[in-house]
Amino acid sequence: MRPTDLSALYLEYIACLNQQDWAALGRFVDDEVSHNGRRIELVGYRDMLERDFREIPDLHFSVALLVAEPPHVASRLAFVCRPQGTFLGLPVNGKRVAFAENVFYEFRGRKIWQVWSVIDKAAIEAQLQAGPRIHDDVVTPRLAPE
Amino acid sequence: MRPTDLSALYLEYIACLNQQDWAALGRFVDDEVSHNGRRIELVGYRDMLERDFREIPDLHFSVALLVAEPPHVASRLAFVCRPQGTFLGLPVNGKRVAFAENVFYEFRGRKIWQVWSVIDKAAIEAQLQAGPRIHDDVVTPRLAPE
Repeated sequence: MRPTDLSALYLEYIACLNQQDWAALGRFVDDEVSHNGRRIELVGYRDMLERDFREIPDLHFSVALLVAEPPHVASRLAFVCRPQGTFLGLPVNGKRVAFAENVFYEFRGRKIWQVWSVIDKAAIEAQLQAGPRIHDDVVTPRLAPE
Repeated sequence: MRPTDLSALYLEYIACLNQQDWAALGRFVDDEVSHNGRRIELVGYRDMLERDFREIPDLHFSVALLVAEPPHVASRLAFVCRPQGTFLGLPVNGKRVAFAENVFYEFRGRKIWQVWSVIDKAAIEAQLQAGPRIHDDVVTPRLAPE
């Protein structure tokens, strides 16, 4: 696959997530997928995503930066959302937070087989520590290239 | 530049960091470099790296995964080191920790111009919470592709 084809395939996967089209997930994700070194398989991957959307009802995946060199894709995902309750061990409780996830994927054929993800927890902590009086425009850090 | 040329250039940059060859840093980093949306310029970038090596005397950059699509590079960096004192706001105090940094770079010409970095703070927290009795082989999470 060429880099542009792999990028297009990846953007289809992101659209699938945003549509919560779980029946289609297996078109993009390998049955034997691993996440951060743990083999969770397709069913575990789907469980993880469904839980994310339960805990963050307004969850939306936005690709801020995309780098493709087959068989790998690296993506910087930008989130602006209101996680309910605890998120990453932090008491977010519905507050609007903006944060990034820098994530690598290895494809096997046309499907995601390995995922290496890091979420910017420190950015969320900083926004929670800023307290309740801060304005929305202030709590939104720059997530994307200028 | 082809992806392979950009990867080779990036690995020269990493070797420069590991040698702490600050006089050569300007060969790889643009005078107007920004880090996570903040324009810190070459002098601020060098200050940041010198501080990292002061706080983590055994700091060593290892590239676990490298994805190049000019003008971008995405790199998963794996660290195993003993930060002295506080690191990312955590009381590490010389304990051996293993963690990853997923980082994107945009090159302008042959130099790094924009950096978007996320460090896996949650992994370090988990290792600190595991307490002092844990063995070294247990505290080392899988950082690299299998």
